[in-house]
Amino acid sequence: MFLAVDAGGTSTRAVVLDSSGRAFGYGRAAGGNPTAGGIAGAVAAIGEAARRAGSGLTAAEHQFATATVAMAGEQSPVFAERLTERLEALGWPRVHLQHDLLGIFGSGTHEAEGYALVAGTGSVAARIVGGRLDHVVGGRGWLLGDAGSGFWIGHRVARAVMAALDGQQPTTALTPLVLHAVGIVADLDSAAGRAAAARQLMSVLYARRPVRLAELAPLAFSAQDDPTARTILRAASEALAGLFAAVRRPDLGGPVVVGGSVLVQGLLRAPPELPSALTSLTRGAALIPVSDGLVGTAVLGLRDAGIIVGEGMFARVRGEVARVAG
Amino acid sequence: MFLAVDAGGTSTRAVVLDSSGRAFGYGRAAGGNPTAGGIAGAVAAIGEAARRAGSGLTAAEHQFATATVAMAGEQSPVFAERLTERLEALGWPRVHLQHDLLGIFGSGTHEAEGYALVAGTGSVAARIVGGRLDHVVGGRGWLLGDAGSGFWIGHRVARAVMAALDGQQPTTALTPLVLHAVGIVADLDSAAGRAAAARQLMSVLYARRPVRLAELAPLAFSAQDDPTARTILRAASEALAGLFAAVRRPDLGGPVVVGGSVLVQGLLRAPPELPSALTSLTRGAALIPVSDGLVGTAVLGLRDAGIIVGEGMFARVRGEVARVAG
Repeated sequence: MFLAVDAGGTSTRAVVLDSSGRAFGYGRAAGGNPTAGGIAGAVAAIGEAARRAGSGLTAAEHQFATATVAMAGEQSPVFAERLTERLEALGWPRVHLQHDLLGIFGSGTHEAEGYALVAGTGSVAARIVGGRLDHVVGGRGWLLGDAGSGFWIGHRVARAVMAALDGQQPTTALTPLVLHAVGIVADLDSAAGRAAAARQLMSVLYARRPVRLAELAPLAFSAQDDPTARTILRAASEALAGLFAAVRRPDLGGPVVVGGSVLVQGLLRAPPELPSALTSLTRGAALIPVSDGLVGTAVLGLRDAGIIVGEGMFARVRGEVARVAG
Repeated sequence: MFLAVDAGGTSTRAVVLDSSGRAFGYGRAAGGNPTAGGIAGAVAAIGEAARRAGSGLTAAEHQFATATVAMAGEQSPVFAERLTERLEALGWPRVHLQHDLLGIFGSGTHEAEGYALVAGTGSVAARIVGGRLDHVVGGRGWLLGDAGSGFWIGHRVARAVMAALDGQQPTTALTPLVLHAVGIVADLDSAAGRAAAARQLMSVLYARRPVRLAELAPLAFSAQDDPTARTILRAASEALAGLFAAVRRPDLGGPVVVGGSVLVQGLLRAPPELPSALTSLTRGAALIPVSDGLVGTAVLGLRDAGIIVGEGMFARVRGEVARVAG
């Protein structure tokens, strides 16, 4: 029996499969990233998702049980130890930690070579060779990197609205959207009303953690006929294309698996003229969107046990995960 | 007797003058801005600067004493009350709070019309009409505004260095300068060394308050022959020109008084081709750099008492402040 856990910043998903790829259970819990939510919270969330996924198993079925947990970034020894203890208590004595980019990549393809490009709250790109991470670029966080990410877009949206309220940049359809999203009622037709709105917007946004500006990113997609929003989204496309270019090797083909809400729910669904930089850079490569890294994490677990996962087995795992996840 | 205090984020300066513009004392203390340093710290710093400036005065000389305190932003009633109490205890029974942009403007000219453009840690521009602030744009802080400021430049410097270490952007002369400035010893000739430097740089910079990225801004001026640094500085010039354009009124001339380290020690001293956007936008206007707002704050105090400050009196106050400040 194999437990696969995809531990993200906002939610954690777990599935239990056997060596034939058949799924036995699925569980979901809160965010399971120790950087975002602390070690105790992350261990609890991963444990909860695992408990739900494995709730239908008998003790005998746990006998050769292995757990594979995919998550972003490097993990501390303390976290790894606590997590191993927690999963062992649930009947999973062997725990392997994996990089979430391998989970994302493996959720889109059974191939061993290719690329992963992710833009959610942050942004990161990876080149995969022989089933391993060969090169990773990005993932430097909201302050020092993450160009083209949800934070990056939301930050530009907030700055553009502030500059528009100040009369420093053209008025934009983003202004009423942003003010409504943060609960500010404003009279935008008067200078005094705009000044009051600007003051309130400062109060609200500086009181939050900066990374929460990522919550404003969807507004850019809602307002994509607005010139300011289009400029921001085009720049995001270019930044993500630049990220992809930094991991691309001319002699290495393979699919480009894309994940994260900015790409999957955003740029890839936007009108074709919008993500032009992105599509022109990836031209010729198959762009495969995935919703998360759970299928790929399960495949990593199977492969670790010596099971060959080709096209057929990959399709089976994907179908089974979709079935139990509902 | 008049006390003038220019309370900045990093230091506070105070001077005592009589109605003829003659200076009697000068004092300096830590930052006196309540937003940056808290109410108690700001009141203590302003009190300390005032005490030093007034230490040579007799009780009789305090009889008609008035204090003018210039600082950024709106102040809370609690702060105003505590400050008044503190200054009253030092022999200054009447306290007027003024906007620091008026202090900056009045430090460069005796005229009543014109503009102030300031780029230090933050950036802000103002139009002054009839000796009052007629329109202010900018000053929205590091997250939502402050384009062209020290934070804005330092932020771009840090991001460019991170992207260069990741191989995502060209190598830049800023990399060794930034690593040295934050105390990281790195082997930049090897991929492993660059990866280690990037990890350490993330640790160091995320552990600080984001606004401290402003400390990296001077490195862009040190490396101004580097294409990356030049691009950043040119963009800063353009952003500040845009800020100035947002307050400029075609029918209103007058001098442009500029303050803040980014402009005074940076862009205005840079090679002429660098701040091209800035100089082309302000063409025809006299650019007057000032080191702080103390002279202007003193002038505000004199004018509040009905004293006319023309060209001669202005020159006298400026000379006297320079003399006692050493």
